[in-house]
Amino acid sequence: MDKPSAVGEHALVGIDWGSSNLRVALLDAQGQVLQRRDSTAGVFTVRDGNFASALWPLCGDWWAGHRVPLLACGMVGSRQGLVDVPYLPCPAGAADLARALVQASLQPPASAPAGTTATLHIVPGLQTGDAATGHDVMRGEETQLLGIATGTAALAVLPGTHSKWIDRGADGSVHDFQTYLTGELFDLLSHHGSLARVMAPPQWSAQAFDAGVGEARDGRLEDRLFRVRTAGLMDRFAAAALSDYLSGLLIGAELKAGLRRFATLARQGPVTLLGAPALVRRYARALQAFGHPVQAGPDDAVFTGLATIARTAGLLQTAASPSPRLEARP
Amino acid sequence: MDKPSAVGEHALVGIDWGSSNLRVALLDAQGQVLQRRDSTAGVFTVRDGNFASALWPLCGDWWAGHRVPLLACGMVGSRQGLVDVPYLPCPAGAADLARALVQASLQPPASAPAGTTATLHIVPGLQTGDAATGHDVMRGEETQLLGIATGTAALAVLPGTHSKWIDRGADGSVHDFQTYLTGELFDLLSHHGSLARVMAPPQWSAQAFDAGVGEARDGRLEDRLFRVRTAGLMDRFAAAALSDYLSGLLIGAELKAGLRRFATLARQGPVTLLGAPALVRRYARALQAFGHPVQAGPDDAVFTGLATIARTAGLLQTAASPSPRLEARP
Repeated sequence: MDKPSAVGEHALVGIDWGSSNLRVALLDAQGQVLQRRDSTAGVFTVRDGNFASALWPLCGDWWAGHRVPLLACGMVGSRQGLVDVPYLPCPAGAADLARALVQASLQPPASAPAGTTATLHIVPGLQTGDAATGHDVMRGEETQLLGIATGTAALAVLPGTHSKWIDRGADGSVHDFQTYLTGELFDLLSHHGSLARVMAPPQWSAQAFDAGVGEARDGRLEDRLFRVRTAGLMDRFAAAALSDYLSGLLIGAELKAGLRRFATLARQGPVTLLGAPALVRRYARALQAFGHPVQAGPDDAVFTGLATIARTAGLLQTAASPSPRLEARP
Repeated sequence: MDKPSAVGEHALVGIDWGSSNLRVALLDAQGQVLQRRDSTAGVFTVRDGNFASALWPLCGDWWAGHRVPLLACGMVGSRQGLVDVPYLPCPAGAADLARALVQASLQPPASAPAGTTATLHIVPGLQTGDAATGHDVMRGEETQLLGIATGTAALAVLPGTHSKWIDRGADGSVHDFQTYLTGELFDLLSHHGSLARVMAPPQWSAQAFDAGVGEARDGRLEDRLFRVRTAGLMDRFAAAALSDYLSGLLIGAELKAGLRRFATLARQGPVTLLGAPALVRRYARALQAFGHPVQAGPDDAVFTGLATIARTAGLLQTAASPSPRLEARP
């Protein structure tokens, strides 16, 4: 970090550290991903707050070898993480996130070479809502969102355990957002309780998925959930198709609620989907059944976003545009 | 069973055998409960199909000692039970249930006195809906419902793991019904996943419960579920109140869906609540917040219902009105 980096040179370790996954990338000064590695060492698996020991096996070579800054987003900045980084209020964009980075001490293992950096920079999450009506929060998705092209307002949907619907302005800042518990409900109902009891290991059934989406679109989720069980009891669908029927019902109910919650923005253009490809395909299929246009965002949006924040914060120095180093900030 | 019984004489063992509970009562020929006993030996706890061994410790003395018929309702008549009794289609009343009783062999233990009956009579469940739109089913609630006074049409709500809303005609027969997964969702979300993680052991909070009911009434459950987590993160409610906030949201969403599903019947009079007193109190409070009148049904409705079915089937012979014994039926 003593001199600006050129294209292809190691310049940043980007870390997407969620509840159940840890994804890292080695980036050059232009924000291009040079290497990527994934693991399941999510925040909730870290023991005794020893985050350095969880990170070291995955990318200790980059961390110790290249002496480049480490920038992380996600649940690592939560109460269950390395340090509880305060949420920023909306609207918030890249400049706000960059200004509010928090540095946490990440003690390298005793075996690490002398001079290995002991600082982890953490991107804050965002909050919306108020005390009267309740809040909503995100950690990590604000960074992924920066991987979508700016210039026009966008309704972005990031499906997952906690699916996020984000109203993003033309300038790239987050105006408002809404969390849906869809993935978590799917996991709970697929592994516990009376619906799980009639399910067999899933084999993709477009018919069952589409039926679920259609019933959620035309009715209420509350009225339909128990039908997953009776569809098994009465052989309406094969036991191996019930998982997709449930998936269709839950995703359909999310779309119905989200398209109503963000009705104005939804009318202005396609929904941008960002997330794991298998899940993006399901949401795209369901949105098309709702008659709504979709487009898929880039797969490595989170690392583009981390590079953008790093550049704005002066953590990434390019030969072309040197900027102040974060260490010099108050 | 060789001679008609008089008031106060043992005439029937009534058995309400659900997934997670086993409740038994000793009844006289008028259907009056002489003794009641409860246990947690629900159908899902029975090992290797040995239902007799599960029943014997709770009421072997009645079973062997009085030589009266055993009549059961609930999940004991399901695929996971002693025998899979076919569902009856709606509309169905006491006469239909009585005609469709199924006899299953319930071998008494070797230590039982000679002559101990080895027959369990089982009440069938009901089904509604069709293959195109999906079915709904019940087992046990059809019998509980017979404990409510007839004469006028009634919208009955039986809250529980699987809450049942029942459209019952003036003649006492079930016309239609709808299951809500409310209790199961509450259990899953209270014990697993991201909402459970912010909850403390519950202490009743009317404020949090009422807030949940109100938000479900005025909005959509999908939009509110994650707020249980943020209410904990942001200290909107105490951690010990979050359980009641979730309970209010889920019950409120059920009421909204149910009052719409049965809108015509709901306008005709109060909702009759039937179930565990603590749960009935929650539903009554929530229905009142919806501006809807309520009345509570009798606590031992299921045994009144079993007595009614037994009498109709000729299993209960009163001195005043002898009727054919079931054993004489084809």
